[in-house]
Amino acid sequence: MTDSQALNEQTVIDYIKQTSVFSHIFDGNDDLKSQQIAEGNVNLLFRVSSEHDPIHKSVIVKQALPYAWRYPDFKMPLDRSRIEYEVLTIEGRYCPQQVPEIYHFDEEKHILIIEDLNQHLVMREGLMKQIRYPLVANHIGTFMARTLFYTSDLYLSSGEKKAMVPKFINPVLCKVQEDLVFTQPYMDHPNNRWSKLLEPQVRQIHQDDDLRSEIFELKELYMTHAQALIHNDLHTGSIMLNEHETKVVDPEFAFFGPIAHDIGSYIANLALSYASQEFHARDETVRKEYRLWLAQLVKDTWRVFENEFLTLWENEGNDDWPSPSFRKKYIQQLLQETLGFGAAEMLRRLIGMAHVHDFWTIDNEEIRAISESIGINIAVNWLKNRRKVFSIDEAVEMMLESKSSYPFI
Amino acid sequence: MTDSQALNEQTVIDYIKQTSVFSHIFDGNDDLKSQQIAEGNVNLLFRVSSEHDPIHKSVIVKQALPYAWRYPDFKMPLDRSRIEYEVLTIEGRYCPQQVPEIYHFDEEKHILIIEDLNQHLVMREGLMKQIRYPLVANHIGTFMARTLFYTSDLYLSSGEKKAMVPKFINPVLCKVQEDLVFTQPYMDHPNNRWSKLLEPQVRQIHQDDDLRSEIFELKELYMTHAQALIHNDLHTGSIMLNEHETKVVDPEFAFFGPIAHDIGSYIANLALSYASQEFHARDETVRKEYRLWLAQLVKDTWRVFENEFLTLWENEGNDDWPSPSFRKKYIQQLLQETLGFGAAEMLRRLIGMAHVHDFWTIDNEEIRAISESIGINIAVNWLKNRRKVFSIDEAVEMMLESKSSYPFI
Repeated sequence: MTDSQALNEQTVIDYIKQTSVFSHIFDGNDDLKSQQIAEGNVNLLFRVSSEHDPIHKSVIVKQALPYAWRYPDFKMPLDRSRIEYEVLTIEGRYCPQQVPEIYHFDEEKHILIIEDLNQHLVMREGLMKQIRYPLVANHIGTFMARTLFYTSDLYLSSGEKKAMVPKFINPVLCKVQEDLVFTQPYMDHPNNRWSKLLEPQVRQIHQDDDLRSEIFELKELYMTHAQALIHNDLHTGSIMLNEHETKVVDPEFAFFGPIAHDIGSYIANLALSYASQEFHARDETVRKEYRLWLAQLVKDTWRVFENEFLTLWENEGNDDWPSPSFRKKYIQQLLQETLGFGAAEMLRRLIGMAHVHDFWTIDNEEIRAISESIGINIAVNWLKNRRKVFSIDEAVEMMLESKSSYPFI
Repeated sequence: MTDSQALNEQTVIDYIKQTSVFSHIFDGNDDLKSQQIAEGNVNLLFRVSSEHDPIHKSVIVKQALPYAWRYPDFKMPLDRSRIEYEVLTIEGRYCPQQVPEIYHFDEEKHILIIEDLNQHLVMREGLMKQIRYPLVANHIGTFMARTLFYTSDLYLSSGEKKAMVPKFINPVLCKVQEDLVFTQPYMDHPNNRWSKLLEPQVRQIHQDDDLRSEIFELKELYMTHAQALIHNDLHTGSIMLNEHETKVVDPEFAFFGPIAHDIGSYIANLALSYASQEFHARDETVRKEYRLWLAQLVKDTWRVFENEFLTLWENEGNDDWPSPSFRKKYIQQLLQETLGFGAAEMLRRLIGMAHVHDFWTIDNEEIRAISESIGINIAVNWLKNRRKVFSIDEAVEMMLESKSSYPFI
């Protein structure tokens, strides 16, 4: 595509009028307004809605350009919009409640039109406000179990799986994660950033070759272990929700990778929120109680995942794995790898390039250092001791016991 | 292709005359003779040689049909000949000494013309005659290290590797191995065969769900762990050698899989030979000494592999894995997985469908039962205790200590 095909606030309306979305969503009413949304770094995003009913008649238009929208020097494959479309379709087949509705896909112009989740909040922001979502453990546990089980060798036939894998080889976006999650944070690299006050703790991590080796073991799994079609960017910023509904968005990073990477990323971001409550929940009682709610959320999410995954395996699994011991070990290994991938996600958010809102909004340097140090300690604990963990309760116990190393004595 | 394109002893000569092989190998001399070779189950095979110099002027013509040559009901993908050609080319680039020369490839007719290894013996047969090959540890250790290192993420860039993987997705031939190696031998299946005298030992294996679980862990790795371009059928029947030269043939099963599967398959077949010497080396002293030679061969092969692999990694590895601890753990894990995959290969040759010459040539049922029982015990020992093994010497010790369970008391 050429740059001239990039949509703007006017042409996006003209574009919609040429699609079935115009009659299907807007009843052909010519009162559309549009607004570019400056969230996200990668794609052009617009909200197009009806003047007379902007809540119910509204869509999101997402266009992939051959580069990252916010960083034009960063080239990106246009194919990511096809991957996003196909993954949303697959996820929607197996877990429609947790996936936004797709209205339109234009493979030539790399435009995807989907449901506007304008009654939903980004989960990360909700957690920063100590909102409790009663259904989210169920929703995300189920989403992970279903999308991961149905695209694994436990459900698909050997041939079906092997036919799917090459459609989702995603070299550029995978390379971003290989570098930013599994490599740069563990060496001197100009992309890395961390709180100055944590210098001694970060230096210790950089000098710890056993820790780096643990991370590289996970990196090797990430690069080679084509276990299921994973979302590959499943953090609390990719989840939009409210009290009743939870939707997982933005699967353009998807590829066949290790199942535990999705679970780990999600749980890591709950643990990051846990650590950052040092600042966000200023009242001590509120903080303590919300942290316990987050701890319970980690446990509940895992339990829902495990139960749903094992139930699906029992009822709909193929005939290729007839062994009760194997099922037990498979789940055990998923738990241990989840803690490993979770640790990698936490560390890269704390000492790598891509930090998260939970921490960068903390303007008090001391409190930020304390929060981040708690996060680092949870991560290092999970990373180094994961092979001794046999239940999610033990993992959460490790989280609850982790303190800040700052101020250093 | 149609069946009418299948070569026969006459048309294969006509075919050669139309290729550059005729001038290049045969100097355009019209004194060719041909002979169909009835070895192998899968492809049409011919030897075409010059009447006046059949030793030096001779080629092998290999044609893939859309089914297994010996079992026409068994459909097979024609694409396997393209895979064989490309893998021979890649192997030849990195380890030319251990790969037959390619003279010609016809993608349309699925015909490959390669060097005739008429001065070489199939390694399995050589071992059955207690021949000692002074260079084979070096040759095969080097072959494995080089072909596996140069196609792994330790050498290739992330993007290069991801571009190669889909070219070698090999669903039909992988499925053969998934079924015959990792599934059927561990359940009641009509394909399985075993010596009647070993019934109690085989029944025990079938009832052992922990053992089945260990096998399924390896199967999961086999199906998902795209570590390097592996040969995937690297046993002593795929190796042609003499005192000076060693050549690895028949890579049509190749795909991106676990490195340890190649090493394990090869070492397993040395251990099978070790067990079968109960019959083949009738003289007790000869047997004892040849078994020690085989044990040493296992050790030497691993050491050559490990040294060469680590040297390549040090000198030519990419910059993605800068951690001494990781290298050490990587090799340790390869060793443990090698014993696992080795055990799976041994068991499937003893209680599955595809038995090997080493045992089926034993006409004395008692001696065959003793030999096979030794093999089963080596395999079960490796399979169940591999995570406690940290050196090849320990693994070989386990082999030397394994006795026959037959006669059962």
